[in-house]
Amino acid sequence: MNKIITISREFGSGGREFGRRLSENLGFAYYDQEIVQEIAKRTELSEKYVQQVMSHRPISSFPIHIGRSFRMMADPNMDQSQNIFREQCSILREMAAKSDCVIVGRCADYILQEENPFRVFLYADMPSKVKRCREKNYEKEELTDRELERRIAAVNRRRAEYYEYYTGQRWGDRIHYDLCINTTQTNIKRMTAAVTRLFAAQS
Amino acid sequence: MNKIITISREFGSGGREFGRRLSENLGFAYYDQEIVQEIAKRTELSEKYVQQVMSHRPISSFPIHIGRSFRMMADPNMDQSQNIFREQCSILREMAAKSDCVIVGRCADYILQEENPFRVFLYADMPSKVKRCREKNYEKEELTDRELERRIAAVNRRRAEYYEYYTGQRWGDRIHYDLCINTTQTNIKRMTAAVTRLFAAQS
Repeated sequence: MNKIITISREFGSGGREFGRRLSENLGFAYYDQEIVQEIAKRTELSEKYVQQVMSHRPISSFPIHIGRSFRMMADPNMDQSQNIFREQCSILREMAAKSDCVIVGRCADYILQEENPFRVFLYADMPSKVKRCREKNYEKEELTDRELERRIAAVNRRRAEYYEYYTGQRWGDRIHYDLCINTTQTNIKRMTAAVTRLFAAQS
Repeated sequence: MNKIITISREFGSGGREFGRRLSENLGFAYYDQEIVQEIAKRTELSEKYVQQVMSHRPISSFPIHIGRSFRMMADPNMDQSQNIFREQCSILREMAAKSDCVIVGRCADYILQEENPFRVFLYADMPSKVKRCREKNYEKEELTDRELERRIAAVNRRRAEYYEYYTGQRWGDRIHYDLCINTTQTNIKRMTAAVTRLFAAQS
């Protein structure tokens, strides 16, 4: 069985850098944006649209139904979301079957649970998430710290909703991870070297 | 400033072994039961009694009061708990001032927060906690798995209540720790070696 590492992360906690470095240290394949690209290719939808759907829990385009009136009607929004999620599941399973790999986000910890992945969750306090976002030049607009905080909180809220919708589990609940790392005061490069060893100890 | 590592842990998650090994790897002092012994010495209470008080959130010996009627009355149970907690605080501060150290439990992560400790939380799933308890021969009586599970859950519930009473924080909430480790499938010895490096990367 291939070795799989899944990384769930709060936006601004350095998850992408950590994932890339970890995959390099271990010589594992690395999947992040590649998953969106592959879904877009298979569904013939635009990457931007797929990304947008994958960043939100599906919302029905119909009002809350009463009785059975709407049950049998197709809901294109829901259908699209479900199609994309189905593709996501099969792509992740193919990736896991192909080689050892590090996968960032996309409910991979849950979808690939039968592969017994090593599941990491990264988080940080708000000031350090703001600092990391500024360093990465994520927000080109001139945002105040308060505005940036609100954006970060909104992204993380959506990640939690999306995860909980598809998995029925609470995002970031420690029991679903093997390791939770607070990156507030952390040098990601040095931390990754240590986690590489920790992974060897756990696996 | 001395380097302080605090270890909070679910009962049965291997926290004591982890703490002792970590202190040996780093050449740090190790404090666990020593704290209870020192409190007993200073308060002239028995170790057993101190341990018992430190395992429960204080409970008033009076019924819930109405208005101001009981406010000014001394409550010996509460006083004793508060005395012991005060001693605990000063002993922990003395230990932290003396040398680099690893401290297990006793709200040390909160009490010593100004020393900027490296705060670890260890947890595991229930079957592995049961397994560890049996291996350590913690329960000499013949308990079924179900009974042992109930005991483990009760100890952990009391730890959470005690911590929350004195700190106002939720025990095990990841934001209060630098690292949360799921020891379910872990070889503690190998894991400790890796965390020794992780500590060096974070500090």
